[in-house]
Amino acid sequence: MRPRIVEVRQNILRKNDVLAAALRARFEAAGVFVASFVSSPGAGKTAFLERTLERTGGTRRVAAMVGDLATECDADRLRRSGAPVKQITTGTVCHLDAEMIDRAIESWMPAGLEWLFIENVGNLVCPASYDLGETLRAVLLSVTEGEDKPLKYPSIFNTADVAIVTKIDLASAVGFDRDALLQNVERVRPGLPILELSARSGDGFNAWLAFLERAAAARPLVAGTTGA
Amino acid sequence: MRPRIVEVRQNILRKNDVLAAALRARFEAAGVFVASFVSSPGAGKTAFLERTLERTGGTRRVAAMVGDLATECDADRLRRSGAPVKQITTGTVCHLDAEMIDRAIESWMPAGLEWLFIENVGNLVCPASYDLGETLRAVLLSVTEGEDKPLKYPSIFNTADVAIVTKIDLASAVGFDRDALLQNVERVRPGLPILELSARSGDGFNAWLAFLERAAAARPLVAGTTGA
Repeated sequence: MRPRIVEVRQNILRKNDVLAAALRARFEAAGVFVASFVSSPGAGKTAFLERTLERTGGTRRVAAMVGDLATECDADRLRRSGAPVKQITTGTVCHLDAEMIDRAIESWMPAGLEWLFIENVGNLVCPASYDLGETLRAVLLSVTEGEDKPLKYPSIFNTADVAIVTKIDLASAVGFDRDALLQNVERVRPGLPILELSARSGDGFNAWLAFLERAAAARPLVAGTTGA
Repeated sequence: MRPRIVEVRQNILRKNDVLAAALRARFEAAGVFVASFVSSPGAGKTAFLERTLERTGGTRRVAAMVGDLATECDADRLRRSGAPVKQITTGTVCHLDAEMIDRAIESWMPAGLEWLFIENVGNLVCPASYDLGETLRAVLLSVTEGEDKPLKYPSIFNTADVAIVTKIDLASAVGFDRDALLQNVERVRPGLPILELSARSGDGFNAWLAFLERAAAARPLVAGTTGA
């Protein structure tokens, strides 16, 4: 049984990778920069995305897609920013895949869109295997989750372009050991950029927005490299 | 492709269910009460289990199995309680299944064991589908994760026998809305028992241990019902 499921899974991943590459080309052709966010449930992805939409919406045409097993809760929260938001409900599926993004875009892609943010289902394991055609993938990790998470969930850190430590306003309340976390990220993914912020206080958002701007500006280069 | 993966998945689940039923019968015959814990990464399962082992180890023969993608971190922490602990590393697999438990027991089952605790991989989605042969399944949810989690991850709440709210010592620091969480659990699983505790302060552990004792005492009845 084991070999068969592995074979099926690899076929699915292969199909996903093909579709993700097509999506990436399509985003690139349309001039859309795509950043995706993965984390545990409750790491603060939605609050982080709310503030990111508010801070970027004034100068950029931004939009968001958000994946959850059930409910429109997150989309409702995010729409308060004024940006177009598309909820993808996955039922029992524990991650977003390229086909879901493709289908969502088919029926919904705001005209003149510049930056698209994709919030994955809260899951620190399965989303690692699915390329969504994004240009930048950020893994979020809150100070309340424990400093050992990079060691225990290495695959998600291996697919990310940046790690974002969230809820730093709670760091002292939870006895967060910053050095230990930074060391653990470095052990799993040497050189991975790490940002630290709080969506509640806004601390660290200037650095995050500057990072986003640089990633978006570097995009044609990245896309050229990928396409070569 | 979709129908094929669904078919394969159902075969695996069927195989898992058969094996889990055999495991349950075996635990019952050996007089072992088994409780499993599922949650997001970082909800505090290991700290909760550490204190549970410390509090029960004096009067009961207890042991623990703990699932993680990688590392022996959790087993090392739990062994400090003095209880036998078995680490199961799953590689890239996002959940424990009955076969992993079966294999672990084959090579490791302390003599005279009374209570076995199983800590699943940190994942609020996939473990819902896998019966481990446990008598009691608890879903843990920390006050830092947001009150909307039951609505967004209903399947895991539907397979649990009790919900445990963790890290209540942080409730005021994070602005935890207790009423909202209780209502959301009730919406998804009317009547599900809910316990609230802190592994750091120890608050709520007396009620949890009393709950465990009742569940263990009620076990022959439950097993009789299941077996009939």
